[in-house]
Amino acid sequence: MSPKHQEYMQQALNLAKKAKGKTSPNPIVGCVVVKAGRVIGEGYHRRAGLDHAEIVALKKCGAKARGATLYVTLEPCFHVGRTPPCVKALIASGVKKVYIGIKDPNPLTGGKSIALLRRSGVEVSVGLLKAEIERANEDFISYITKRRPFIAIKSAQTLDGKIATRSGESKWITSQATRQKAYRIRDQYDAILVGVNTVLKDNPRLNGFNKKRVIKKIILDSSLKTSLPANLFKGSYESCYVAVTKKASQRKIKAFISKGVHVIVCPSHKDGVDIKWLLKDLAKKEIMSILVEGGAKVCGAMLKSKCVDKMYTYIAPKIIGDHQALSSIDGNNISKLVNAFDVTTDSIETIGKDVLITSYVYRNH
Amino acid sequence: MSPKHQEYMQQALNLAKKAKGKTSPNPIVGCVVVKAGRVIGEGYHRRAGLDHAEIVALKKCGAKARGATLYVTLEPCFHVGRTPPCVKALIASGVKKVYIGIKDPNPLTGGKSIALLRRSGVEVSVGLLKAEIERANEDFISYITKRRPFIAIKSAQTLDGKIATRSGESKWITSQATRQKAYRIRDQYDAILVGVNTVLKDNPRLNGFNKKRVIKKIILDSSLKTSLPANLFKGSYESCYVAVTKKASQRKIKAFISKGVHVIVCPSHKDGVDIKWLLKDLAKKEIMSILVEGGAKVCGAMLKSKCVDKMYTYIAPKIIGDHQALSSIDGNNISKLVNAFDVTTDSIETIGKDVLITSYVYRNH
Repeated sequence: MSPKHQEYMQQALNLAKKAKGKTSPNPIVGCVVVKAGRVIGEGYHRRAGLDHAEIVALKKCGAKARGATLYVTLEPCFHVGRTPPCVKALIASGVKKVYIGIKDPNPLTGGKSIALLRRSGVEVSVGLLKAEIERANEDFISYITKRRPFIAIKSAQTLDGKIATRSGESKWITSQATRQKAYRIRDQYDAILVGVNTVLKDNPRLNGFNKKRVIKKIILDSSLKTSLPANLFKGSYESCYVAVTKKASQRKIKAFISKGVHVIVCPSHKDGVDIKWLLKDLAKKEIMSILVEGGAKVCGAMLKSKCVDKMYTYIAPKIIGDHQALSSIDGNNISKLVNAFDVTTDSIETIGKDVLITSYVYRNH
Repeated sequence: MSPKHQEYMQQALNLAKKAKGKTSPNPIVGCVVVKAGRVIGEGYHRRAGLDHAEIVALKKCGAKARGATLYVTLEPCFHVGRTPPCVKALIASGVKKVYIGIKDPNPLTGGKSIALLRRSGVEVSVGLLKAEIERANEDFISYITKRRPFIAIKSAQTLDGKIATRSGESKWITSQATRQKAYRIRDQYDAILVGVNTVLKDNPRLNGFNKKRVIKKIILDSSLKTSLPANLFKGSYESCYVAVTKKASQRKIKAFISKGVHVIVCPSHKDGVDIKWLLKDLAKKEIMSILVEGGAKVCGAMLKSKCVDKMYTYIAPKIIGDHQALSSIDGNNISKLVNAFDVTTDSIETIGKDVLITSYVYRNH
């Protein structure tokens, strides 16, 4: 494969990434159209409901698209969703050749557009920068194939794995620069999920870095102990989801609903909500990705439910050195090391004095 | 400073490092002698009692040393120790100029040789590659200035800071490659220190990577619960030190001594031995550096005693996710984050799938 083709696909991927965190429940997609060695059109999908990347790029080309080569990170859509199918627009444009990064993981489309393009006489090549594009759409792919949101856990801990002292003091383990970075990572997720104890104890706002972007907030709160004046509800009732069980007071549920808060009454599982059921329900509500921010038992329960994809572990250069201090993840009764959860380290970066280890969970027991 | 001078000093430092872990209680020292742009002699200090680096190098030069430039990582010795003072040999050799990396931190010598060289008409420049040379001799410098061994803690933990499951299973958290690396790090220390519970539970050998090198073994064992058939004593009674208190059985102490084991009867401090007293005593016994390998309470007590210099934290890509699993460091009752121990990260390296974070303790509370 000529390096030039890779460059154009990289350009399409870079365009796609501009909309990261803004296209849910759609993937990020970028497109570049090239003719006679010149880029004649480019575009990316900005937000669900707006034009897909190919359409943005082809509109810029107009009639010049005829005979051109088109690079698009994801297979064009085949089905009519919020917008008309792109594959027809591609065929109508007269492009000669199409480079597709990855096949659409959506079973409604998967491979159908590729076949139709070929039947219509368009040359198609699939797989350019596949790994990079899959990585950039890891949330979407997981959402489509597993029918649950992509789940990441964030923990901010000391070198000895503690997230708070024995008295519960946790402000702050990591530096301000690290917390800023953590806010930026929130912007890549549809929703933040915490347990009710985190709300009661820390009363967090759970906002992202980009204040204009709406971030959804999910609270695991089987007995509905939280209350409407909590910080995280401020100005954003409609983007809050409280997962309760039958234990919750009907009167309180009604008060929450009347404010616009989404109350999800879940089946019970042991002491709390049935996490697997909840995640399937959130997927139906088009929540594509969730960042879980604690506490330790909520993170542990997520792992136990085999629903965790990714871990962001921030490590601060501090040692508490106290077994009674709070561990970063709790709630699993594991006696044998072979039953530990296995992760694979993806990257290690320093943020000032802190370290961020990003990893993927590849074996849940 | 000309880069050429740096290169010669780097060459001297590289020579010095060949003897790392073998010169205790002396520092590592390297020397290069240059004349008319050519290295005419070089050497390093191989072992306490053998020639110092300058003597090795000057012997190779013979009469050619007259008028040459000598690079030595550490100020030549002034006092008569196991060998005659090097400063006199330097003056006698007729070298014209001497580049010294660092001043001898030993108060018996500190600066005296530099002054004598200058009085004798030798040009002297001090400070070339100072930081690197100090780093390479961090154990010696700490030993000389703090009058206690340089102390490093090693822990092998999961991403969530656990060194064993709740049932105590710890074999193995890290990979074989990481354990090999950990053995090589042992070779840089005079002694390994563990608590008696580690001996009783794991029955480790505590050997280094280099089987020919004698590594000392220190057990904190106030009541003398360990027994002579333990693996770590095998073939090495004389290099073992057991730190006990008055609680220990006199009969058992005698049995240990009769085998050649060093039994150190220490003052008590709370439940165990007085660590500060013990470390001063071990320094008198010319133990320059100690690697502490657990358990968690021993590491915690060392930190509490404000006696820890360095941390090797191996992190394996596993999550136990259980508060009842063993934390890497224990025994400190810390409620306020401001009272946590502060470390400064020195390096982060990957060893296969594991990560090693090396840090220095810079604030003990």
